[in-house]
Amino acid sequence: MKFTANDIANLIEGKLEGDPGVIVNKVSKIEDGQPGSVSFLANPKYTPYIYTSNASIVIVDDHFEPEKPVKPTLIKVNDPYGAFAKLLEIYNNIKHKKSGISDKSDIAETAKIGKNVFIGPFVSIGENTEIGDNVNIYANTFIGENVKIGADCLIFSNVNIYPDCMIGANVTLHAGVVIGSDGFGFAPQQDNNYKKVAQIGNVIIEDHVEIGANTTIDRATMGSTIIRKGVKLDNLIQIAHNVEVDENTVIAALTGVSGSAKIGRNCMIGGQVGIVGHLQIADEVRIAAQAGVSSSIKEKGFTALGSPAIDYNNYKKSYIHFKNLQTLVDKIAYLEKELKKLKAKNN
Amino acid sequence: MKFTANDIANLIEGKLEGDPGVIVNKVSKIEDGQPGSVSFLANPKYTPYIYTSNASIVIVDDHFEPEKPVKPTLIKVNDPYGAFAKLLEIYNNIKHKKSGISDKSDIAETAKIGKNVFIGPFVSIGENTEIGDNVNIYANTFIGENVKIGADCLIFSNVNIYPDCMIGANVTLHAGVVIGSDGFGFAPQQDNNYKKVAQIGNVIIEDHVEIGANTTIDRATMGSTIIRKGVKLDNLIQIAHNVEVDENTVIAALTGVSGSAKIGRNCMIGGQVGIVGHLQIADEVRIAAQAGVSSSIKEKGFTALGSPAIDYNNYKKSYIHFKNLQTLVDKIAYLEKELKKLKAKNN
Amino acid sequence: MKFTANDIANLIEGKLEGDPGVIVNKVSKIEDGQPGSVSFLANPKYTPYIYTSNASIVIVDDHFEPEKPVKPTLIKVNDPYGAFAKLLEIYNNIKHKKSGISDKSDIAETAKIGKNVFIGPFVSIGENTEIGDNVNIYANTFIGENVKIGADCLIFSNVNIYPDCMIGANVTLHAGVVIGSDGFGFAPQQDNNYKKVAQIGNVIIEDHVEIGANTTIDRATMGSTIIRKGVKLDNLIQIAHNVEVDENTVIAALTGVSGSAKIGRNCMIGGQVGIVGHLQIADEVRIAAQAGVSSSIKEKGFTALGSPAIDYNNYKKSYIHFKNLQTLVDKIAYLEKELKKLKAKNN
Repeated sequence: MKFTANDIANLIEGKLEGDPGVIVNKVSKIEDGQPGSVSFLANPKYTPYIYTSNASIVIVDDHFEPEKPVKPTLIKVNDPYGAFAKLLEIYNNIKHKKSGISDKSDIAETAKIGKNVFIGPFVSIGENTEIGDNVNIYANTFIGENVKIGADCLIFSNVNIYPDCMIGANVTLHAGVVIGSDGFGFAPQQDNNYKKVAQIGNVIIEDHVEIGANTTIDRATMGSTIIRKGVKLDNLIQIAHNVEVDENTVIAALTGVSGSAKIGRNCMIGGQVGIVGHLQIADEVRIAAQAGVSSSIKEKGFTALGSPAIDYNNYKKSYIHFKNLQTLVDKIAYLEKELKKLKAKNN
Repeated sequence: MKFTANDIANLIEGKLEGDPGVIVNKVSKIEDGQPGSVSFLANPKYTPYIYTSNASIVIVDDHFEPEKPVKPTLIKVNDPYGAFAKLLEIYNNIKHKKSGISDKSDIAETAKIGKNVFIGPFVSIGENTEIGDNVNIYANTFIGENVKIGADCLIFSNVNIYPDCMIGANVTLHAGVVIGSDGFGFAPQQDNNYKKVAQIGNVIIEDHVEIGANTTIDRATMGSTIIRKGVKLDNLIQIAHNVEVDENTVIAALTGVSGSAKIGRNCMIGGQVGIVGHLQIADEVRIAAQAGVSSSIKEKGFTALGSPAIDYNNYKKSYIHFKNLQTLVDKIAYLEKELKKLKAKNN
Repeated sequence: MKFTANDIANLIEGKLEGDPGVIVNKVSKIEDGQPGSVSFLANPKYTPYIYTSNASIVIVDDHFEPEKPVKPTLIKVNDPYGAFAKLLEIYNNIKHKKSGISDKSDIAETAKIGKNVFIGPFVSIGENTEIGDNVNIYANTFIGENVKIGADCLIFSNVNIYPDCMIGANVTLHAGVVIGSDGFGFAPQQDNNYKKVAQIGNVIIEDHVEIGANTTIDRATMGSTIIRKGVKLDNLIQIAHNVEVDENTVIAALTGVSGSAKIGRNCMIGGQVGIVGHLQIADEVRIAAQAGVSSSIKEKGFTALGSPAIDYNNYKKSYIHFKNLQTLVDKIAYLEKELKKLKAKNN
């Protein structure tokens, strides 16, 4: 993809200074800008680099006036970082946006496919499944029967969506994601065997959710496992059956949420956190990485750390003492010795 | 899939009261039963809901006599929960049961395919591989050469089975599972490089095992990594080379078992547990979530917690004191001060 | 694959004693050698087994002279274990080495494919992507546009390589690996929503890297996430955006490395370790399993344990006291009581 300085000035509504015809096809940091790249200057600390940068275009502040000659074409805007971010977004959207339905895909006759959809090779789509407008589905993705996928979703390669799941609009699923696998439910039998409990619910994912690579979300035993609007899940996360994660909560990689836990809205959950089943986590709770939450957190905005997780500051304080336990032990030994001496004297 | 009340009464050998022709195509909880759904009433606490439920069919106890008129058709059985579970199982089996071999699959000529097998599109099956009767293999699954898969297995989409692995009967593998990837074996060299140790063993999975989405099981360096009969593994678990997991042990998500560890039968292992290589874990051991087991557990039925893992109750007790370490530290400081005073008095 | 004793003697440059025509098609340990297998005897402890082994061939030391008749054909070499390892390597290379391009693959016209390449069925390769000589790509793998893959790589099934990523030579990627998924970058907005930060960098993987099954490596926000020469990553690892892992570092399963962390060379990092973002880890650092590294480690060769991670020996010592906290608490209570008595006496 190539853009001229003029294209970019129009996209971000900026004022051009320099050659409007210079062409770029990539982005760079200003300190290592190469010919053919577009960069930006937002932090004054980096101003010196503009006089040495080989970037072809630099987006700068409205008020920027070079003190020396500069090589790059400048585009002046109100908010250089914001304009650059907007540019990246446009670039990214164009990059991932494809169209056409591969004749190497396998689409059930009863599936309903929206307008302007991209379906890559080796994708299979089951009976009665509905795919919204402008959805992009990359190669090797499997979508079972009776699935609904809203408009403007981006589904990367090798994703698995089991039957009956519902995906909202503007959802991004990264490669290897599994949606709707069976919940881990087995009833112990008298002979030590386990009998599988049929998992006949589904998964509901609301609008504007993003789910990272190889993350797995199990279907509910009955009813639905629900990921609410705006939730962001990192890679390699496990969400068990009947869990609900409320709006705009973000969860980092390798975290596991056990069955039927309910997590509030606007929570921030670190990596490798474990949350025990059937708990409730209030809104705006923060859980530090590697914490193990073994009881409900009812206080809004609580910050937890440790395994089992307790108040963040308490844990930190106790951990300082933990590191000094040898000193405590020595002090106690000294006290015992001295006390003994004193007692001897007093008898 | 649609069933009449009459169909269901026959399936679960119940006595029908109400319209035998009413049709259902889903299940619901009694408290939020919708028209077209079948529900059940087992816990007397939920009895009031039967008078307001919009479920079309409710499975009830033999002895249940409504005190007011009820809308749903009733089916009376000895054990309503058991009958409902049986119904779900039948429903689930029908749902996942497909047949036919997709002409978009890629099956080696030397592969032997059993009777009544379903093979989805974009599945590939290697040379000399044997697939048992009634096996279902969903889209995009890769099965290498010389693999054996027993009867009645259910293998979901995007599963990977490397060459030479052996899968028993009635095994379920969820989407994204990897069986038989190379063990993590590298020999350090004098120049700080590592030389790969060839991993030429395989993985053996016995009957009635279920393995969750994106779980990985490495092949043995030599010999076999073995998952015994009835073992249940959750999602995103790592089983390293030459591990053995004995019968009916269950392991929760995100747990890692290092190379050559041997885990006993009927163990229950929580989520995010780590087990060091070459250890032995006795039968019926329970390991709490996030524990790190760094030495063998030889006592049958032992319960472990902590990292490194120790006896569950000891850990719990020590952790209470850990949370109060500030108090201990304050007490010691007080003792030191008082002792000093006393010593002064005594001199 | 079948070899005669004569073939093997030539491959490992050994001296044959016994039937040169005996055929083997697998390997075994000497203590459970079966007909048709090749084994080795390196450790004198195992010498008795050579008189009972049913292996068809045993590789032995130059100086080995049987005291009794032996059934297997012997191949005498200078270093039996080394020769056996070499044999395994040859065997493994032959096993994974395939050739030909499946007509069920989907390769862009602008892709450049090297010589002697194997591309399995249902593989897709994007525009302008370059595949080096002797590369093997198994079924269902997706490789996006503008990717470069060096010579002699082995890429198993269902691997995902996003656009613009660069893979060196002699790299092995196991099944389900994801390279180049978006970094987890979201900017909080005033209304509690998150706005995605476009992730327009890539991933660079240098030569001789091996990456385990279902491991995920995110692309950089800008610039590159870099895995240097000789790094070995186990299964189910998360490497976040803009991380750098330096040469010959090995990382065990289920570890997570957060954004922009820099890890030195020749480090050994255990399983389920968490490393906080933006940290620096010096060369030759060892991090024990389940540790949580929350600040930079600047000391070369440091060994860390605990969460938050501290010096290994300090943690071990403190943990011993942690396990005995009840005893400490009891001692303090005793001291308090005795002190009180003494004070009473002294007043």
